[in-house]
This record gives sequence, C-alpha cells and structure tokens, in this order.
Amino acid sequence: MKILFSFYPKQDQQSSLIEKFPQADFIFRKPLDEEALKNADILVTYGEDLRASHLKTATQLKWIMVASAGLEKMPLDEIVSRNIMLTNVRGIHKIPMAESILAHILSIKKSLPIMADNQRKGEWSRKLNSSELFGSTAVILGTGAIGCEVGRILQAFGVHTIGCNRSGKMAPSMDTMVSFNRLKEVLPDADIVISILPSTGETKHLLTSEHFQCMKRSAIFMNFGRGDVLKEEELLQALKEESIAYAVLDVFEKEPLQEGHPFWKMNNVIISPHASSHSSQYVVRALEIFCRNLTEWISGSDQLENIIDIKRGY
Amino acid sequence: MKILFSFYPKQDQQSSLIEKFPQADFIFRKPLDEEALKNADILVTYGEDLRASHLKTATQLKWIMVASAGLEKMPLDEIVSRNIMLTNVRGIHKIPMAESILAHILSIKKSLPIMADNQRKGEWSRKLNSSELFGSTAVILGTGAIGCEVGRILQAFGVHTIGCNRSGKMAPSMDTMVSFNRLKEVLPDADIVISILPSTGETKHLLTSEHFQCMKRSAIFMNFGRGDVLKEEELLQALKEESIAYAVLDVFEKEPLQEGHPFWKMNNVIISPHASSHSSQYVVRALEIFCRNLTEWISGSDQLENIIDIKRGY
Repeated sequence: MKILFSFYPKQDQQSSLIEKFPQADFIFRKPLDEEALKNADILVTYGEDLRASHLKTATQLKWIMVASAGLEKMPLDEIVSRNIMLTNVRGIHKIPMAESILAHILSIKKSLPIMADNQRKGEWSRKLNSSELFGSTAVILGTGAIGCEVGRILQAFGVHTIGCNRSGKMAPSMDTMVSFNRLKEVLPDADIVISILPSTGETKHLLTSEHFQCMKRSAIFMNFGRGDVLKEEELLQALKEESIAYAVLDVFEKEPLQEGHPFWKMNNVIISPHASSHSSQYVVRALEIFCRNLTEWISGSDQLENIIDIKRGY
Repeated sequence: MKILFSFYPKQDQQSSLIEKFPQADFIFRKPLDEEALKNADILVTYGEDLRASHLKTATQLKWIMVASAGLEKMPLDEIVSRNIMLTNVRGIHKIPMAESILAHILSIKKSLPIMADNQRKGEWSRKLNSSELFGSTAVILGTGAIGCEVGRILQAFGVHTIGCNRSGKMAPSMDTMVSFNRLKEVLPDADIVISILPSTGETKHLLTSEHFQCMKRSAIFMNFGRGDVLKEEELLQALKEESIAYAVLDVFEKEPLQEGHPFWKMNNVIISPHASSHSSQYVVRALEIFCRNLTEWISGSDQLENIIDIKRGY
C-alpha cells in the first residue's frame, strides 16, 4: 500500500506515521510527485495541487484525503468518474474558527478598538458605548462542524442561535432553524449574521442587497465561509449606506484583497486576512483524522470520517 | 416605610417601583438628601456618598442597598455598630465583566491588534502568530459570581480552570481549587491569570514580584478586581523584564490612571479604563435585585440576596 503526501509533515509526525502503519509505504514529497502518484493508493494533499490530468495515470488511486476544508480547486468531476473516495478535515477548523469569530464579536461589543485608540492617545475615557452579547440573537449560515461550534459557544454567552441551512433541518446548538429560502424572515431579528458557508452552486451569491436591507442597522455581518456567497459590490453598498453597522471579513471574492480596495479604509469593516482557521494544531489534528481513517480503511471498513458527497460539494 | 434613593433611576423605573410597592414611600434625590435620610428605613445608593456622620441622625435606617459591588467608600464600622443590614448588587457585574475578560483574552490570542495595524497599513499579512485558547489553563483569583461566570465560559472554550480563594474550598466552574497561600504552586501552569479580587485586608498586595516570577513568560495577567491587589511598581518591573507576556488592566492603584504613567505607552499593557463592568443593563439588573429583596423584606424574611458580611468585607 503506497501513501503519497504532497506536503511535508514535521519529521516526528512522519516517523510516527511510519511506525504506526508498518504495512504502508509512505512517500512525502513536495510539490506533488506525478511519478509516485501513478502507483499511489492514497494521496494526502492540501487540495490545491491536483489537476484532472494527473488522475489519468493514477490508476491505483482509491482515496484522496484533503487536509483542508475547501474543495474548490479539486478536479471533482474526474474524481467522481474514477470512483475515488474523497475525505477532508472538516471539523479541525472548528476550534480556531469559533475562537476567531467570538474574538471579533466581543471586540466590537466591548469597544476594544476604541479603547486601543484611547490608549494610544493616553486618554482615560470611559465613554465607550460597549454593549452586551448576552441576550442577543445570531443567525448562523451553515450548520456544519464550525457553525455548530460557534452556536455552542454563543449559547454559553446567552445568545439565541438561529441556524440556516439548505433543508432547515435541526442542527446541534441551534435554538431554531430555517432553510435558505426563509432566511429573510429571520434577518430582522439578528444582531449578528455569520456566514460559514462553503462555496457551492447553491451558496454562490446567496446573499444579496435585499438581505442586507433586511438586517438591523446595528447588525454585525461576518463572512468566514467563502467570498462568493455575496457580490462584494453589494456588501460595499450596504456598508456605505450604513444598512448594517459592521462587516468582519475573513474571506473575499479575490484573495489576497487587492491593494486600494475600499474595504481597507472603511471604519465599519474589519479585515481578517483569511486567518481565522490558522492554528499551531492544524497538522496535528489533520493527521489524527487521517490516522483514524487509515486504521478503518486498512480494516476494510467504509466508515471513514468526513467522506465528501461530491454532488453536494461538501 | 420610607425608601430613599441617592440617585435617579429612569422615570419608568421609578414609576414601576412605586406601582409595585404601594406600601412604600419612595424618595428619589441626588445628591444624598441628609434631611430625608433621618426618617428613611432603607437607603439605596451607589456607595460613594454616605459618610459616618450621616448615620448619627439616621435613626430609622435598617437597610442600605449599595447598587455597586465595591464597598471601599462605605462607613462600614458605623454600619456594623448601628446594626444596619448591608446588601449590594454582587452578581450583576458578572455578565458584562465575563464578556470583557473574554474579549481581551481572545483579542490577544487571535492577534486582533496586529490585524488592525495591518489593516491601517493596507497590508494583507497572514503571519499573525495567533494561538488557541482551547487547551490552555487559567488561574482565577476570586471565585465569587464574576469569577465563576468567567470560569463557566472559559470551560466552554475548553480551558482548564483553577480557582483560588481564601479557603481553597471548591467553587462552581472550577476544575480545581487552591487557597491563597498555595497560589504559587499553580502559577507555573497558567497561561492566563485573572484577578477579580475585591479590596480587603487580606487581598491588599496579595500578588508580589515573586508571583510574577512564577508565571510563564507567555502568560497573560489580567487585573479586573481592585488595583491594590499588587504594587504597581512590581507589576511594571515584571512587564519591563518580560517575566510575563501581557497585562490587561481594568483597575489601578490610582484611577484615573495618571497622564504619563508608563503603562500608557507599553506594548504589552492593555488599558481598560475601569470599563469592564459597564452595561446598558446595569440599573435594570440592580433594581431587579432590589425588588426581589424588598419583597422578602416586607414579608419579614431575612433571606435577602447579597447580604454583606462586613467583617469579611464582601
């Protein structure tokens, strides 16, 4: 059994894999080694290096593990037609992302940027207009691992959580649920609207000017999913018109956000440079999932974690 | 029954009190009305206006409700000797304070000030050195309502909580407990050390240079209790020597923090101008406690909330 990595885990992580799975032949090589791929049973990749053309000669390939959550750059059609199993590391982002999302919410609510400005000026000012998170309402778009973790922590802060997904089917840590097509009904109640949606055919441009019009003027909108859930021009307009109070953006239509983009200078925009999922624990957790899955796979089980339903796109 | 307020609740709050307690004669006057105090059964005050001399003629006074948590400015000896019951609003600070404390912790962990600097410079930089709150350890000095609320939320984030109080007796939302005199044993484990201690004979200068020496160099120290829990000179020294990574200070030896104090300009100090307990819900919650207590009191019960044990000082 040949397992090809297209990135380098740390030396001790490599050793640990080799020791745990003596029956496997591990190859660690960056960039993606096309020759080695021809004989590989399993490919472990960050998901940005595999082209459809690579798969033509990868006749042994049965499983691709993407050590990332986004699958936009994967040749999904080829993977389906070749009947290759695809898994990702859905779930490992939930801790750093929920912490990042809460950090931004609380920072705004508790006026931390104003406090920092005052400190720079050496000014003791208690007029900060802080508000409370307790008792507020959040709409969470996307109720996968990350959305539910955000919901769980928001509930601990006494926030009413409204989840929103395709079906409207109940999800953990949500007080109520709506489906995408009923989103507008709940937006007027929301103090915070958080999108953690992946980029799929259904989520592209899901949020329109009309949605921002429905929100409270005091609402905080956060995009921590993918940039194409909205047209940036429409969000920009809503912010200029102050239809909402703040946008906290971790993702953008085009990344890195280009120099001179109006968002950089806007007081009601906070730019997090696609940094919310960063964690020193990232590879550790990705390899934990891989090891659990590999153990299952070797035993002949098909009960792997995070198998992707490619037709749905996540 | 005469009830004297030395501050003005909002008009609708006054009306609601009058309506709820028709048997009481409410007087709302600011500043403290010494004449009215002579006949008052109950005084409701923010706790900064009552002098020992006032009590000599306040012969009817049976209960003082302080709509604040700190009692440092109250004439406690006179109150004891006159056998007047004292209550405060302990507990109403817990929500805004826990939110403030978490805001600062997460802001540091997720490098929000660095992100804001980069945005000001128009710089897309993902090198932020963010870290995770999950899996870290917090020592919480003071395990009253606020400390336990902070502990509860930290636990929701997957933080190991070590409470510290006089007796070392178990408190809610603490994974383990130590007494004040065993504090040094647990400090080396702490990623975050939070003091929420009131100012009493026992807590004054409880934290010394030695304690800062015990902490991790990466530790965040937060003082959200009272400034005199330490000598500012000793904390300053620890910060200059980088014995700890950050101090987040809501309280100081002298408030407002004087102009030109070195704290203002230090990169590893965050100044919150005694603002952590601010909340638009403050008076609402204080009056809720007062109403519950007044109902008990009228019924002849002595089971009031937040009766102060004046000898302990809280």
